[in-house]
Amino acid sequence: VGPEALLLWKSKSTFTSFGVFCLQMGWGDLGAFGEPSKETPNLDQMASEGMLFLDFYTANPLCSPSRAALLTGRLPVRNGFYTTNAHARNAYTPQDIVGGIPDSELLLPELLKKAGYVNKIIGKWHLGHRPQFHPLKHGFDEWFGSPNCHFGPFDNRALPNIPVYRDWEMIGRYYEDFKIDLKTGEANLTQIYLQEALDFISKQQASQQPFFLYWAIDATHAPVYASKHFLGTSQRGLYGDAVREIDDSIGKILKHLQNLGISENTFVFFTSDNGAALISAPKQGGSNGRFLCGKQTTFEGGMREPAIAWWPGRIPAGGVSHQLGNVMDLFTTSLSLAGLQPPSDRQIDGIDLLPAILQGKLIDRPIFYYRGNEMMAVRVGLYKAHYWTWSNSWEEYSKGIDFCPGQNVSGVTTHTQEEHTTLPLLFHLGRDPGEKYPLSFASDEYQRAMERISVVVQQHQATMVPGEPQLNVCDKAVMNWSPPGCEKLGKCLKPPKSDPRKCFWPH
Amino acid sequence: VGPEALLLWKSKSTFTSFGVFCLQMGWGDLGAFGEPSKETPNLDQMASEGMLFLDFYTANPLCSPSRAALLTGRLPVRNGFYTTNAHARNAYTPQDIVGGIPDSELLLPELLKKAGYVNKIIGKWHLGHRPQFHPLKHGFDEWFGSPNCHFGPFDNRALPNIPVYRDWEMIGRYYEDFKIDLKTGEANLTQIYLQEALDFISKQQASQQPFFLYWAIDATHAPVYASKHFLGTSQRGLYGDAVREIDDSIGKILKHLQNLGISENTFVFFTSDNGAALISAPKQGGSNGRFLCGKQTTFEGGMREPAIAWWPGRIPAGGVSHQLGNVMDLFTTSLSLAGLQPPSDRQIDGIDLLPAILQGKLIDRPIFYYRGNEMMAVRVGLYKAHYWTWSNSWEEYSKGIDFCPGQNVSGVTTHTQEEHTTLPLLFHLGRDPGEKYPLSFASDEYQRAMERISVVVQQHQATMVPGEPQLNVCDKAVMNWSPPGCEKLGKCLKPPKSDPRKCFWPH
Repeated sequence: VGPEALLLWKSKSTFTSFGVFCLQMGWGDLGAFGEPSKETPNLDQMASEGMLFLDFYTANPLCSPSRAALLTGRLPVRNGFYTTNAHARNAYTPQDIVGGIPDSELLLPELLKKAGYVNKIIGKWHLGHRPQFHPLKHGFDEWFGSPNCHFGPFDNRALPNIPVYRDWEMIGRYYEDFKIDLKTGEANLTQIYLQEALDFISKQQASQQPFFLYWAIDATHAPVYASKHFLGTSQRGLYGDAVREIDDSIGKILKHLQNLGISENTFVFFTSDNGAALISAPKQGGSNGRFLCGKQTTFEGGMREPAIAWWPGRIPAGGVSHQLGNVMDLFTTSLSLAGLQPPSDRQIDGIDLLPAILQGKLIDRPIFYYRGNEMMAVRVGLYKAHYWTWSNSWEEYSKGIDFCPGQNVSGVTTHTQEEHTTLPLLFHLGRDPGEKYPLSFASDEYQRAMERISVVVQQHQATMVPGEPQLNVCDKAVMNWSPPGCEKLGKCLKPPKSDPRKCFWPH
Repeated sequence: VGPEALLLWKSKSTFTSFGVFCLQMGWGDLGAFGEPSKETPNLDQMASEGMLFLDFYTANPLCSPSRAALLTGRLPVRNGFYTTNAHARNAYTPQDIVGGIPDSELLLPELLKKAGYVNKIIGKWHLGHRPQFHPLKHGFDEWFGSPNCHFGPFDNRALPNIPVYRDWEMIGRYYEDFKIDLKTGEANLTQIYLQEALDFISKQQASQQPFFLYWAIDATHAPVYASKHFLGTSQRGLYGDAVREIDDSIGKILKHLQNLGISENTFVFFTSDNGAALISAPKQGGSNGRFLCGKQTTFEGGMREPAIAWWPGRIPAGGVSHQLGNVMDLFTTSLSLAGLQPPSDRQIDGIDLLPAILQGKLIDRPIFYYRGNEMMAVRVGLYKAHYWTWSNSWEEYSKGIDFCPGQNVSGVTTHTQEEHTTLPLLFHLGRDPGEKYPLSFASDEYQRAMERISVVVQQHQATMVPGEPQLNVCDKAVMNWSPPGCEKLGKCLKPPKSDPRKCFWPH
């Protein structure tokens, strides 16, 4: 379930900053990526002043694991953000999840702290909501936002409303203290998150302290909202209104950096945590352009992301990169910008993108597409091999849950789990970005490509040591009943008796 | 069957030029429109220096009727480029067609001639190949190109190879004198057409004569070709190689205008005659991005086109327009640029786009989607109502002819002709550009939109006077057996006995 994020960050020596926005926006939601109403002038300008990544991926087709991967530089199957309850299942951190980010994982802000950075997360955390998983226990110095998405409103009996934190304590709950009008779609949350970002940047600039800002707004996640000023302004309906507000906010943040005179010391990166949720389309969901399917799937629509790097004076304006990139690279790249080395005691999957960004180099590296602990597919160069295909089960599909609406590629968008490990389905993403035309198994091209891919996969699987799965156990007792600070607000709720059980992950 | 075109044209008073490229390129084939390999730097630059039209249409989902509409400013059902042999059929001008552009139609070059313009067509004409349909009989002063597409090679017994003309006479035939290597995909035709364009522009500039150039190359039509320099250069395979060569050529033409110092007097327009032919994808066909289906259909993928207007110093750089536009508008707009009025003795469907291009105005006008003489759909504002749906017949579909590969929208991409005239299928193209989610018939939004649309349709149909259909009769005797000039070349072929019959149009 996908919120949004911006990292802003300054290197010790050059007062450089770094930023990522992650949101549940699809590849096709930006004008620069062909959205037909072209309503993202600020992101399009960010792209024209910076570098557009056309082959950039998230680490998982849904929220929590992607965010864990972004902050650890490691695949979810390594950092524990996966489930083994059933085969090839997507799992995340709903309110009743018992697990969260393990203490043994080293998060980007923990490492940056050692280099003098002040780290802030604004918005959705999503790496666990129990006390031991609090972001301030994992390297962040400040937090304004919530542990989960803004689902609701809930009755505070079967389910509590999601709390909003300032640093260590809850300061209210969504719907109760932070209004979201589901009828009109009005909410001021993006404006609140924007103001938090501007204030933090001003404060850091005034104190000349390098910072890392992770702006993880959640406005394009269903239920979609926008503030009054943006409601009804998009050709695309409420979802478009939310996109416009985010676009406008990003424009204001970049402008703020420029006005404060620190834009040339600021590295900003925009990307998304998973593909658009087509199950919510068209009113509450975005677009993955021509790519197949959406969030929850390991087709391109589920994991290929819009991505823009911006650093005036350092990144050549109007650049375009075909470097295969991944959100995990932002971990390694950030460390590199800070003059730090990634930890050497564990496998890091992210690579340093600076040679691609600053010198236009192309680094040869694969992209892995996982569902749970199953490697569903791998991309090497322009080839993508599917070892397993599955959109979702017939049972779910028959209930109207469709991750590929209007799309049906025979033998590819399957409703049973199909194993292709002996003879993978192979696509050439240059000629066929929509994954509609599998290559003939008998062709020379298939043979040549699979020889290359097999080596990569063998290496990957031979050295894979999965972490302990964190997303197996659920318990209603661990929900956000009584977050720290609830007493002051009179908002403590009584948890039910503990009753741990296996979480059910349907797809 | 769709070739390509550029109109270049200069107004009498200001030495202005005007250009259109029409090619069977899809909306999604340009980087500026989100093609993921982003291999059209020249077209993208043309867009950033000019104005991008995001809601621009062709007049018909296939070649000949679109070209007839472009040059007459009138819907094919008025200018005769349709068939009544069966209901809602696409028809064009294959080698055995008896009909062509009627003398009673007034073509753009005929009118521009009166204002002193020199008119040239380079490339595919496609408005009939019998002597009375010759482009130099319909206003053009010069022609280098062919009456039909470069299909082949043929045996010159059952079917003659397509002739290539210089002005009045054939100078050779495709495959025989103008090589196309189907095995390697190599052909120099785009380079030849480019050189023709550069030479013509130089000549006109030297003589200070206003000109209209219709650059109608056919390289992205199957069988796809590119010249040696471009072969193997695209991520997208041979089709991408052809696109790159066209993109490069357009860059060279624009540069040439600039070098000659006439770019500020030159109005150039780029667009396409129909959506990408998905039946040829992925090796020989392009992409319509997120739009539904392709060429031959009245879904957005069949008729929404990439479109760019370029006129340095006059059109503001980087502009974007949501004006609903149509290739027929280029007729009226061109006349307006030349200070001429459109003919008043007939219905003209094209509108003058200059207020949209130069002043950013939005003109309220509908878009009609026809197959034969049946109005299949209409767009008013952001709403599109389908009165009939049909992709193609079950019979054709079962043979593997698929105009919507990998796409299947229940009740929309139908393989029987479905009538919805009493209760049209309605889509909101802002929220749902892919035509996947018909609005509920019971919704207020449906009622309000259909009230508005019904008035437009009623007006349109009440005043519709179809022209005499030109695409009903076929006869092997009228093929390109002995085009003028064949004697000099020893290339006259003996026609069979005349045997006129109803043409068969399967979809």
